[in-house]
Amino acid sequence: MDEAQTLDFQELKRYSMFGGITPETFEALRPFIHLQDFNTGDHVMEEGAVNDRVFFIVSGSVEVLKHLEGRDPGDCRRITVMGTGETFGEMELIDVQPCAATVRAIEPTRTLTLSNHDLYRVSKSDLKTYTLLILNLARELSRRIRTMDGMISGERPSSQIDISD
Amino acid sequence: MDEAQTLDFQELKRYSMFGGITPETFEALRPFIHLQDFNTGDHVMEEGAVNDRVFFIVSGSVEVLKHLEGRDPGDCRRITVMGTGETFGEMELIDVQPCAATVRAIEPTRTLTLSNHDLYRVSKSDLKTYTLLILNLARELSRRIRTMDGMISGERPSSQIDISD
Repeated sequence: MDEAQTLDFQELKRYSMFGGITPETFEALRPFIHLQDFNTGDHVMEEGAVNDRVFFIVSGSVEVLKHLEGRDPGDCRRITVMGTGETFGEMELIDVQPCAATVRAIEPTRTLTLSNHDLYRVSKSDLKTYTLLILNLARELSRRIRTMDGMISGERPSSQIDISD
Repeated sequence: MDEAQTLDFQELKRYSMFGGITPETFEALRPFIHLQDFNTGDHVMEEGAVNDRVFFIVSGSVEVLKHLEGRDPGDCRRITVMGTGETFGEMELIDVQPCAATVRAIEPTRTLTLSNHDLYRVSKSDLKTYTLLILNLARELSRRIRTMDGMISGERPSSQIDISD
């Protein structure tokens, strides 16, 4: 895992988590962002294991798999496929818990990563940048909830729904 | 809508958004937090209208209603009921968009509110407190997504699911 020395400002800006960052902020963040490459079939995350970082897909693609309850450990269902420009593992930056799904590379895949430990270091060295990243992350989660709300409330009987939590 | 002069520190701490605040932070936040009372039948939020604030239910309860597509405007379905200690409208603090549902008081209901404009003022006067509130909010959204992920991925065929966004 190398520091992403060749990382380009414009490249990073396309990920919603880096919306609004300045070239100066970018330089401050650069030491904390790493390249991580995966071969076809490599597991990036394992369902039930702890993940501590966010992944930004630079090239390639991954599949998201979920174990089917009551089946053999290897018996999984593909939930979705993600490719260039997409992000996964954001929630682990703020809320370390066992992964809800397995993520596996389905072709050679290059990612940029930022760990929650390094994000913590950013919070200590540059609170303004840290706040911007967390706000961007919260907005992304909010967008996701609006999408999921629509999916759930449009199609479920009310007894199964609880958006109050 | 009055400033919540009688607001108690312990009372505020029970809402996840205020987790980790100190008595000093509490005093700094107090001028921005208001009491808002609703009578039975009052609409707190209107589906499709813009809401600009979070509500913390102090007492009473509300129902969350969603309009049924293709039906008359008043034809709604109850999604859930929320009561004392629960929170709604958090996402509007960071992502102002039309409300996804109508919220109506089903008994006399007292809430505490914080508007996104006032939260912005907190960001200017006390970045550390602002960051803590946004981080708490992001964690709450993250928890909600984990719950919804379980609901969706456990019961839907893969063609309908996209958790990538």
